[in-house]
Amino acid sequence: MPPPSEDRLLRWLAARRETAGLIGDDGAILPCRGPVVVTVDAQREDVHFPAGLDPALIARRLLAVNLSDLAAMGAWPVWAFLTLSAPRTFAHRKFFDSLLRAGAALGLTLAGGDLSSTPQVATTLTLIGRKEPGSRWLKRSGGTAGERLWIGGSLGESFVGRSLIERGARVERARSQPGRRVILPADLRLRGALARAAKRAVLRHLLPEPQLELGRWLARQRTGGAIDVSDGLGIDLHRLCRASGVGCDVAAPALPLPPLLGELLHRLGSRLGATDCALAGGEDYVLLFSLPSEVEPPRRYNCYPIGRLRRGRRLRLTDELGKKAILRPTGWDHLSISGGGW
Amino acid sequence: MPPPSEDRLLRWLAARRETAGLIGDDGAILPCRGPVVVTVDAQREDVHFPAGLDPALIARRLLAVNLSDLAAMGAWPVWAFLTLSAPRTFAHRKFFDSLLRAGAALGLTLAGGDLSSTPQVATTLTLIGRKEPGSRWLKRSGGTAGERLWIGGSLGESFVGRSLIERGARVERARSQPGRRVILPADLRLRGALARAAKRAVLRHLLPEPQLELGRWLARQRTGGAIDVSDGLGIDLHRLCRASGVGCDVAAPALPLPPLLGELLHRLGSRLGATDCALAGGEDYVLLFSLPSEVEPPRRYNCYPIGRLRRGRRLRLTDELGKKAILRPTGWDHLSISGGGW
Repeated sequence: MPPPSEDRLLRWLAARRETAGLIGDDGAILPCRGPVVVTVDAQREDVHFPAGLDPALIARRLLAVNLSDLAAMGAWPVWAFLTLSAPRTFAHRKFFDSLLRAGAALGLTLAGGDLSSTPQVATTLTLIGRKEPGSRWLKRSGGTAGERLWIGGSLGESFVGRSLIERGARVERARSQPGRRVILPADLRLRGALARAAKRAVLRHLLPEPQLELGRWLARQRTGGAIDVSDGLGIDLHRLCRASGVGCDVAAPALPLPPLLGELLHRLGSRLGATDCALAGGEDYVLLFSLPSEVEPPRRYNCYPIGRLRRGRRLRLTDELGKKAILRPTGWDHLSISGGGW
Repeated sequence: MPPPSEDRLLRWLAARRETAGLIGDDGAILPCRGPVVVTVDAQREDVHFPAGLDPALIARRLLAVNLSDLAAMGAWPVWAFLTLSAPRTFAHRKFFDSLLRAGAALGLTLAGGDLSSTPQVATTLTLIGRKEPGSRWLKRSGGTAGERLWIGGSLGESFVGRSLIERGARVERARSQPGRRVILPADLRLRGALARAAKRAVLRHLLPEPQLELGRWLARQRTGGAIDVSDGLGIDLHRLCRASGVGCDVAAPALPLPPLLGELLHRLGSRLGATDCALAGGEDYVLLFSLPSEVEPPRRYNCYPIGRLRRGRRLRLTDELGKKAILRPTGWDHLSISGGGW
C-alpha cells in the first residue's frame, strides 16, 4: 500500500529549502525573540477569483493580499501557514511551487498548513512578520489632525479588472515570451490604448503588488497612521479616521485614477463614475496613510496627496467645483461579499 | 449610511474581553518572548461536519481539533486567528460566543481573522501556543526502539458517530436541562445500551476532547514521541515511526474499543470490523505516544498500552491468536478526503 498522496506531497514540501525543515509535526516550532505581527486572509473561488484560474496565480494573489496587510503594519514576512481545499485534480505542486518561489524572494518560510479535498478551491494564509529594529509598528490609530493624507497608487483599476473578468476576460501563459497574456472579451471591442488599459486592469486585479517597501519606510517615520485599501477607499478611510479619532477633507480631483478609467467603466456598462469607482471599488491594495506636512514619501513610491486629516468626526469630499459633500464609507462589506482582514 | 455589518460585528468582537484589545488593525501585534508553536486546521461543511450543524458546535469542534495538535506538541494555546466564510444568514455571534467562551476557559485570546460571505460554511483556525518553562516540545521524532506505545483513549467511536450522522443522527439543544440531546435515526431501531453508545459516539465525533493536560504531562517527561490520532491509528502510527526511525509491534486485542463498537458497525452495515475501524476510522483526537518501559502515564489520563517500538522499519500487528501481519497506513488521505494538520 503506497503512502497516501497527501504524505507524498508533504514529503516533497518538507524537502524544499523554502520550508526550512519546519514541516513534519502537528505544529511548527518558531524561534520568536520579540514581538511579531500576525495576519490571516482567505481567497475563495467565485468570491475572490474566477473558477479555473491558474493555480500559480491563485497562490500569488493569496500571498499578495496577505502581504499587503503586513505592509500596512510596517512589517516584513517571516513565516507562513497555509490551508488549501481543492479538488483532487487540482495542480497542487504548481500552486505550491508558485507560493514558495514568490515567498522565497522575500525570505518567507512556509512552516505548516492543512490540506483537504473539496469541489471548489478555498485557501487561507496566515503570515507572521517582524518589524525592523528601531522602527515602529504602523497603526490605523497613528493619524493626527493636520497631517496630510496620501495614497500609495491609483484607485479603481482593480475594480475594472474584476468587472472585465466577470465579463469573460482571462489570462493565459504566453507561449513565446515570459509573462502572461490577457484575453479580453471580444464583444467589448476594446482596441489600442483602451485594450492596453483593460489588460493592465485585469493583471492589477489578479496580481496586486503589496507595498512592503513603502510600509517599511513609513514605519521609520516618527508619526502617521496607515491602512491598506482592500475594501474601498471610502470604507478604509472611515476606519483610519475612526481609529485615529479625527475627520478628514479629501479632494476628489486629487484621487489618482489610472488612464481611461471612466471610458472603461462606460464600456462595461457600470453605473459607477470614475470617482465613485475610486472611492468604492476596493481591492486596490495600496497604502492609505498620513504624514506631517513637512514629510513627503520618496518619489520612487509614486504616492499621491489626496487631502488632510482634521479635527472632529466629519469626512468630507470636495469636488471639482469646490462643493463639499459627506464622504461615505463605500466599499465591500465582508458579510455581504468578501474582502480583506481585521 | 450605517457602518457595514462586518464593522458592527468587529466592534462587538473588539469590545469583548476575550479579544484583549488586539482586534482593529491590519494585523495583530503579539508580545512573543520565546519560541512558540503554530498550528492551523480547517473545518468545512459537508467535509468535516454536516450542513445545518449548530454554529456553537462548529466553533467548538474547530477549536477542539486545533487544540489536539497543540496537545500533541505539549503546548498550551495563547492566541487564535480565525477565518470564517458563511452565508449572510449564519448566526455569526452565536459562533463567536461559543468560540470565545471555550477559548477563555483555557486563557486563549482571539487576536484576529478574516470574514467573508459564501453559500457554505468554511472556517479555519490558527493557534499559537507556548510550552511550560522547563518542559520539552513533544515531537513525532521523539520515539526510541524499546519504548512502550500508548494511546490516550478509545478508538473508532468517532467513525461510528460520523456514520450515524451520515445516516441522519442529529443534535438538539435540550430544553429542560443543560447539555445536548442526540436524536438517532429511527430506522436503525437502536435501544437501551446500544442507543446510549450510539449517542456517545455522535457527541464524541462532534465534540472531541483535546488532551492538553496529557500533552503537558508528556512534555515534562525526559523522552518519548507523540502525535495526535486525527487521520487514523494506522496512518498516524506510520508517521510517528517514520519520524522516529523505528518500527513497532502492536497487539490488536490491546486496542481500546468503546462498548458495543462492533455491534454498532454491524447495525450501520459497515464493511469494517471493530479492529479495522479502530485502525482506520480516524478523527479520534487522542494522543498516540511512546514512553520508556519504567514510566506510566497517571491513571487519570485513561491511557492504554498497545504495543512497543522496535528497531527496523516494520510495523506489525498481532491478532488474538498470535498471528502477525503488516500494519498498514490506513485512515484518511487529505487529498482524497479531508483530515488534520501538517
